[in-house]
Parts: sequence; C-alpha cells; structure tokens
Amino acid sequence: MAGTDSSIEITLKPSPAIILCEPQLGENIGTAARAMANFGLWDLRIVRPRDGWPNERAVNAASRADHVIERVRVFETLEEAIADLTLVYATTARSRDLQKDVLGPEETATNLAAHIGAGHNAGLLFGRERWGLLNEEVALADAIVTLPVEPAFASLNIAQAVLLMSYEWRRHSEAGKALPFGNTMADVAPREELVGLFGHLETTLDGSGFFTAPDKRPTVINNLRTMLERGKFTSQEIRTLRGVISSIDRRHQRPNPNRQKPQSDKEE
Amino acid sequence: MAGTDSSIEITLKPSPAIILCEPQLGENIGTAARAMANFGLWDLRIVRPRDGWPNERAVNAASRADHVIERVRVFETLEEAIADLTLVYATTARSRDLQKDVLGPEETATNLAAHIGAGHNAGLLFGRERWGLLNEEVALADAIVTLPVEPAFASLNIAQAVLLMSYEWRRHSEAGKALPFGNTMADVAPREELVGLFGHLETTLDGSGFFTAPDKRPTVINNLRTMLERGKFTSQEIRTLRGVISSIDRRHQRPNPNRQKPQSDKEE
Repeated sequence: MAGTDSSIEITLKPSPAIILCEPQLGENIGTAARAMANFGLWDLRIVRPRDGWPNERAVNAASRADHVIERVRVFETLEEAIADLTLVYATTARSRDLQKDVLGPEETATNLAAHIGAGHNAGLLFGRERWGLLNEEVALADAIVTLPVEPAFASLNIAQAVLLMSYEWRRHSEAGKALPFGNTMADVAPREELVGLFGHLETTLDGSGFFTAPDKRPTVINNLRTMLERGKFTSQEIRTLRGVISSIDRRHQRPNPNRQKPQSDKEE
Repeated sequence: MAGTDSSIEITLKPSPAIILCEPQLGENIGTAARAMANFGLWDLRIVRPRDGWPNERAVNAASRADHVIERVRVFETLEEAIADLTLVYATTARSRDLQKDVLGPEETATNLAAHIGAGHNAGLLFGRERWGLLNEEVALADAIVTLPVEPAFASLNIAQAVLLMSYEWRRHSEAGKALPFGNTMADVAPREELVGLFGHLETTLDGSGFFTAPDKRPTVINNLRTMLERGKFTSQEIRTLRGVISSIDRRHQRPNPNRQKPQSDKEE
C-alpha cells in the first residue's frame, strides 16, 4: 500500500523498544524496522545479529525507515539490551514450562500503553528465525505474549510478529493515559539490578554446592530467575535481598574481624 | 516465531477471500499466502500476476502454506475475481476522490464476520506494490479500508497489509477468541507454606546476625515478607527457596563432619 506523506515530520513519541535476539537475516531486521515505522515505533535493539551491523540488506529491506535504522543499537547480551526497561514481554508461539502469565496482543498493548503512558520504559522480545527465544531469555521477561494464530500454522515471520505488535501498540496507545492517581508503589528496579541479583545468588549457590546435578543447573536457574522476576522488586528490595544472601553466606566470617563489610549490603 | 503444531489438521472454515491485483513479486504472493494461513484464511485470488502462475518464488516464500498455494485461482480481470462475492472492501493507504465509506480494520473485520457468519461471501482487495489499487478497481468495492498507520511512514508491504487484515478477521471471528496456548502456571502455595518460608528465612537471618538494629527488625521483616509474598510462589518454588536458604546457610559446615561443634561455624 503506497501513501506515505513525506511532507509530514516524523516525531519520536514514547513507545516500546523492540529487541531482536540473534536475528539471522538482514532482510528480517529491515522489514521489522519498516513495520515499526509504519506504526510509530523507533527504538530497535539487536542482540548479536548473525551478520553483524550495519547490514546493507537490512537497510534495503527497511525501505527508507531511516529514522529507525539510524538509531539501531547492537548489544552483546540480552541482559544489556533490556537493562533500562521496567516491563519486558517475550513473544513466543510455543508454550513454555515457566511460571509466567501468557497474554494476547491486546492485553499486552493495553499494559504497554499504561506503563509507557506513566513514563516508564518497556520492550518486546523477539526470537530467532529458526527456533525463537531460548527459555533463559523468556525467563528474563515479565510475561509471555502469543498471537491468536491458527495452531496448525502458527509460525510467523519475525517482521510480521513485530508488525502485529506494533499495530496493537498504536491501536491502544491513544487509550494509554495513566490513571489520575495510581498506587503508591515505588518503581520496579531496572533490569540490570535484577540481573545483578541473579548473578549474586547463582555465584553464591555455586559456592555452596547447591547444584548437585550439573545437567539440571540451567533449568533450576531459569526457575529461580522466573520466581524472582515475578517479585517485581524495587531497587531497595533488591539491595535488601542481596544483603540477605551476603548475610547468610558470610555469617561464619562474622566472628572474624577482617570480614568484608557485610553491613554495606543491608537495609538500614 | 516457531510453534506450528503439525499434528493438527487444517480445516478450511468460511473466511474472506484475499484478492491481489497485478502483484509484481512472487515473494509477496508467497508471504501473503503465509500470512493468510497464520490466521486461518485460505481463499487467495490473483489478478494478472506479472510473473505468471505457478510461481516458484511464491511457493518458497509461502513456507509450506501449501493448502493456500494449491488453491490459488488466477483471473484475467478483477470483475471475474470478485464475481461470486456480495461484500468487497478495497484496501488503500491513499485517500481517493470517491464517494465511498472509509473504514478502519476493526469495523471492517466486524462487518466481514457478520456477513460471512450469515453465510455470504466477502473479499478484500489489495493493490500493486508500487501504486496500489487503481480508482476503477476501488470503484468496484463497497467501501475503502485503511490502516491506522503513521502518516509520515504509511507505506505497507502487501503481505503485511494482508497479515493485519487477516489478524483482524481472526480476532473478530470465532476462531480468534482463543490463543493457541494458555499459561501453564501451577497454583500458588497455601499460606502456611509461605509462612513456613518466612519462619525459615527469619530464623536463619537471626542466626546470621542480619538484624543489626533490633528496633528495626519488625520493619525489615515486614518488608521481606511483603516482597516474598508478591512472588506468588508455588509449593515447588517454596521448597526450592528453602533449599536455597539451607544450602547457603550450611555450606561452611559441609566440609566439616562434626557440624554440631561450635568450631564448625568458624570460617575454615
């Protein structure tokens, strides 16, 4: 469908970040960028693109969505790519054995509109062409998003999944006004703090011999991360939890005068 | 997004016909067919495809939407292509100087669902890659359909326009009510198990000297309980968390067989 009015300035309004995990084909990155531009999204983040970045095929496939392509940010890890987000949804067409809510696109867009309308950052994760997102990637998200596809033919091209979510975002963003007053809860901590908690706990558990069956370690870690993520912890709460871990881990050192300042981790 | 369940039989339910007018690229025909299959559409009609039919590129791009590709019908004129339809909408991103209603995708899907639900035939027209539908083609339609795109970047690829309309069709038809899978979340543990976790953690923290300021102890405990409660843990997760606490708490004793002796609490 032709029809772009190039006389109109493109303005970048607050909108969800789109995070592509290890996309293989530049064409898909480009068509995803174009789909975002169609519905007013512009924050495209790529984790380890197979063919590197910049990618000429992506630029061509974006058909002049330059304002998106020029702003693409590439990351080495998903954790870095979502570090500044406080609401993250993982798109997947497969049911996962994770303790997470499963939302449809409308509910997702409604939640994104409320969150972003209230001035917070949110993002949508999309997986690889061949096998989508890994469970450890899904474990980093607040909830799973899936589309009402025909179960007998559920495989959506990445750019098309991005298009549908961008479309739903635009449909709901007008209605995305924050309530006149909300609850008094503090903001959820940025993802990097949650990831820091994961690392702290897992290192401690490695040291404590928690993982008796090494082959089960990744699953146990996904489950631990999933249950911790659901807590929607604030920065203060994460500091408290890390203090809890350090305190239990170090209690045997306490009689020892040259201990490593455990108070620093504590809530006062 | 992977996830097709090939064990499920594809059934062809009444749905709108998709009519492509003089598509130039086989890839677009194929991706349009795939998009239709994703949302349960199957009646694809093509008017004067530039590269003829069958088209190998279309077949490849359809990625196994064979039940759509095999049923493609090619026509010499648009009039023939829509001969059996009693409701026809023309998709366009440009305003036309025609005395026709302009509908959004939702209203369109609602009307299609009512019309097809009543046993009638309906279809959606899509134009050429470069310049869309001609006015004489739009003139054959009951109304114009346009998408809520960003005016400054309104140009949608044909397959993506087909995808969005197919998605809206499914959302408004019966099939669209259900997601392909729901959440697999287990029940939240009974409160006594959560209280058991509280007790376990708090006893351990008393032993580890976590509560440096006794007067703050009740507040800190309330904060800990509040954040743990928010996790909505299952029984299994509570067992895991208690295992985590015990594991960290006991690690210094593990190498020492006489774990009862006070010395065993000293750092080795």
